[in-house]
Amino acid sequence: MKKRGRKALKDPHHFCVTGGGKHEGYELKGKIWIDGNEGTFLGYGRIALLEKIKQYGSISKAAKSINMSYRQAWRLISSMNRQAGKSFVETQIGGKNGGGTKLTEAGEKAIEQFWRIHKKFKKFLSKEIKNFEI
Amino acid sequence: MKKRGRKALKDPHHFCVTGGGKHEGYELKGKIWIDGNEGTFLGYGRIALLEKIKQYGSISKAAKSINMSYRQAWRLISSMNRQAGKSFVETQIGGKNGGGTKLTEAGEKAIEQFWRIHKKFKKFLSKEIKNFEI
Repeated sequence: MKKRGRKALKDPHHFCVTGGGKHEGYELKGKIWIDGNEGTFLGYGRIALLEKIKQYGSISKAAKSINMSYRQAWRLISSMNRQAGKSFVETQIGGKNGGGTKLTEAGEKAIEQFWRIHKKFKKFLSKEIKNFEI
Repeated sequence: MKKRGRKALKDPHHFCVTGGGKHEGYELKGKIWIDGNEGTFLGYGRIALLEKIKQYGSISKAAKSINMSYRQAWRLISSMNRQAGKSFVETQIGGKNGGGTKLTEAGEKAIEQFWRIHKKFKKFLSKEIKNFEI
């Protein structure tokens, strides 16, 4: 991956901005993320990476699909693993399909819970803009 | 102001990041803003500018206090006025105090409503992190 010079995403949780529907021409928008003991723990970019690892069964393919360097992908995965105190991915070496990487239960749980909160956040935005008027 | 070369804030609503209390070492954080028909209408930076205008009774003093150029302050005020379809500030020329700028009722209302939503957002963040576990 490195030789292609793909640019690492500096602030990966910033790729998703969510809105909750318009009200009289105004839309309440926002973004959320979860901090751990080192700073960002889970955000939209990290979740996208985990989902792509699940989809492709490969960290390098996952990283490539979201235009992230392999190095950056590993940096993010290590950061999540360290802060959670458990691993989010497990890599099988060899086997009939030549190995691959899949998510652990903790990794799956991270995705599920992040989207659960995000969904509620969208509802919050949609509700709060209704009382807004200038 | 311009001669001092103060750097304009590119993305003013990004100056406030809010969190809602920690839960088992994790903190749900986020930011919100309101879009109008031209994009950003109200965000943390614009609200800070309005509050400083209220405090100082002067756009140039307000801008200076938050390290913003006068030009950028005017750009933001015009953007809010246009999108709201009404003025957020009114300038008095002359008078015994040599004039000055104050907020209109719409400007005051914008501040009040933005913080009302922000306060609820903090509560939302604080509540939602309580169900989070990996």
